[in-house]
Amino acid sequence: MAQSKKLSSGIIRKNREMADGRTIRYYDTGNQLRTASDKRPVEAQPSIGELRLDPLVNEWVAMASHRQGRVFLPPKELSPLCPTTGDLLTEVPESDFEVVVFDNRSPSLRPPVGDWALPDRVGPDTDLGTAAGKCEVICFTADHGKSFKDLTPQRVRVLLEAWIDRTAELSLEPYIEHIAPFENRGEEVGVTLSHPHGQIYAYSYLPPRVEKMLAAANSYKKSTGKVLFDEIIAREIRDQERIIVQNNRWIAYVPYASRYPFEIHVTPLNPVADLANLTAEDRDAFPEIALEVMKRLDGVFGIEMAYIAAWHQAPVRTGRDVLRLHWQITSVRRAPGKLKYLAGSESAMGAFIMDMRPEQSAAQLRDVKL
Amino acid sequence: MAQSKKLSSGIIRKNREMADGRTIRYYDTGNQLRTASDKRPVEAQPSIGELRLDPLVNEWVAMASHRQGRVFLPPKELSPLCPTTGDLLTEVPESDFEVVVFDNRSPSLRPPVGDWALPDRVGPDTDLGTAAGKCEVICFTADHGKSFKDLTPQRVRVLLEAWIDRTAELSLEPYIEHIAPFENRGEEVGVTLSHPHGQIYAYSYLPPRVEKMLAAANSYKKSTGKVLFDEIIAREIRDQERIIVQNNRWIAYVPYASRYPFEIHVTPLNPVADLANLTAEDRDAFPEIALEVMKRLDGVFGIEMAYIAAWHQAPVRTGRDVLRLHWQITSVRRAPGKLKYLAGSESAMGAFIMDMRPEQSAAQLRDVKL
Repeated sequence: MAQSKKLSSGIIRKNREMADGRTIRYYDTGNQLRTASDKRPVEAQPSIGELRLDPLVNEWVAMASHRQGRVFLPPKELSPLCPTTGDLLTEVPESDFEVVVFDNRSPSLRPPVGDWALPDRVGPDTDLGTAAGKCEVICFTADHGKSFKDLTPQRVRVLLEAWIDRTAELSLEPYIEHIAPFENRGEEVGVTLSHPHGQIYAYSYLPPRVEKMLAAANSYKKSTGKVLFDEIIAREIRDQERIIVQNNRWIAYVPYASRYPFEIHVTPLNPVADLANLTAEDRDAFPEIALEVMKRLDGVFGIEMAYIAAWHQAPVRTGRDVLRLHWQITSVRRAPGKLKYLAGSESAMGAFIMDMRPEQSAAQLRDVKL
Repeated sequence: MAQSKKLSSGIIRKNREMADGRTIRYYDTGNQLRTASDKRPVEAQPSIGELRLDPLVNEWVAMASHRQGRVFLPPKELSPLCPTTGDLLTEVPESDFEVVVFDNRSPSLRPPVGDWALPDRVGPDTDLGTAAGKCEVICFTADHGKSFKDLTPQRVRVLLEAWIDRTAELSLEPYIEHIAPFENRGEEVGVTLSHPHGQIYAYSYLPPRVEKMLAAANSYKKSTGKVLFDEIIAREIRDQERIIVQNNRWIAYVPYASRYPFEIHVTPLNPVADLANLTAEDRDAFPEIALEVMKRLDGVFGIEMAYIAAWHQAPVRTGRDVLRLHWQITSVRRAPGKLKYLAGSESAMGAFIMDMRPEQSAAQLRDVKL
């Protein structure tokens, strides 16, 4: 029997155990029978990786050397993210599904066994840590040929509810400090499986960029008494010229200092710390703006854009009063035949050079005929 | 007449003015006649870009929107970095050269005009700045088909002297805070001109990664009294297993927490703040180790590896007691047909996941038969 849980808007989650002990979670509109079993032979589970401190910048680097042999761009008929049909036994035992989330077969981060703690950061004397955390895969549809932008509004609503549910549940794990659902799309950003899907990374440490956002927000709060992100949104609304689309609950804009030819931030006008704190109204108003943004992005050059779409939320246990939920979509595509690469200045120095004014990028996105 | 300057080891620099007012500098072994004039029509100079603060992480982003139309992978017969021969008028008026450095025709950063200051960083209220700085191009050889690893030791010695000279001279400019010579190699990292060359970026602000290195080094000095980088080298020497090659002046190793499938740091054993501080002995001992490292890198898979090779030095006016010169070479190539991409975890969260143990990468580099 599947463990069943009622979520909001009549969405129901059912958990099933996979052959090797991993969990798969079906998120459905209403009650669906989810009883299919995983018939594949049991594989040995990879061991947990190492967590090493890069003392030059005081940042953790996870070492997951077992991932070198993972599945790489298999043909469609071997896609492990499609539903199971006939002899093709995939990661999803059912023959159809709406949205599923399952534990990653080649996870970069794994739940720790026994006592676990992050080592203190003391430069080159820092102890070796273990790459604790959790990595999950989220499939948006059973249809291999679709993209996010082709989903129905109801499907995006189920997807959002799955992201919310995973954020809420993973936040209860004592070893998890930060949760990041994201989607990589396109071979240009290294996607190895073309089935429409995303990932959820739950880190046992604050990712370096989150740590930096937290420092900036804390410093701004200390010197002005205000919440940085709220002031950023206020400026975008005041300037208007970088706003792409807005409804009565959400706003989508190209940020003032964007780093990529196309970068879009989508945020609720009623700011919250994380996905689990979104109100019912915000949840229901998300699919419309999300689909419009993705359609506009693919419309700019009339081709499927490579992108990374990542949810930034407040960490689980810190910064909840100063960091705000937003969805960041970045594309390295600067023209039909041209990509932006992170080369010497960006990669080695962290200094971004933008080839395009954010206002021009926003205008191009607004001008797309839908 | 070319302005002439004697550098160390009998290397001579001659400056010439280009048609549009830019400067080209010839670095030669001994005295060479450098009198050819730039015969091309004068082009309008692009205007200076904007410098915007990304308040989310408190980092500067340079906006150089005029660069969108720059030359993109021209055929060899139109290469602007080859010497001028016959009707092909290039960036280099002479018909042959050893090493040349000239001001970039499409610079991301430009010298400021008149009074100039970096705005204070006050979140979304930060004033718009100008993208002040200087971008130069450095050609390693007149031979279009060669790579760094094919250069003679004497040519690498001239190249090093050019980097040193540019660092010393650019350090005198009041608007320059940090100098980063780097080379991008391979279309995989977005190289738009295949002639063997590098770039020199001189920033009017501390690049974000340098700012973070400075914070880590200052914090380590404060809590331990020691110089972080010296302790890092001491640990690499103690561990031995990540060292690739060493001579009596330099050491090359894969760092303990490397972020790329192949990442190599090369540093003098007698630590210095920047290139200009290298001793005569260190300068003369560099070509041997630099060439060996580059040959080993291309030897791992028997193919030309895409890489970014960047010099990290102490900034011009700060951190000179705690930051140390090193040459960082990173390659995204993890197997002959596979690249490492910076996707959701690395790009959006700044959290690097390494698919390969640094010790394995070091062993592969050591095992290459030269």
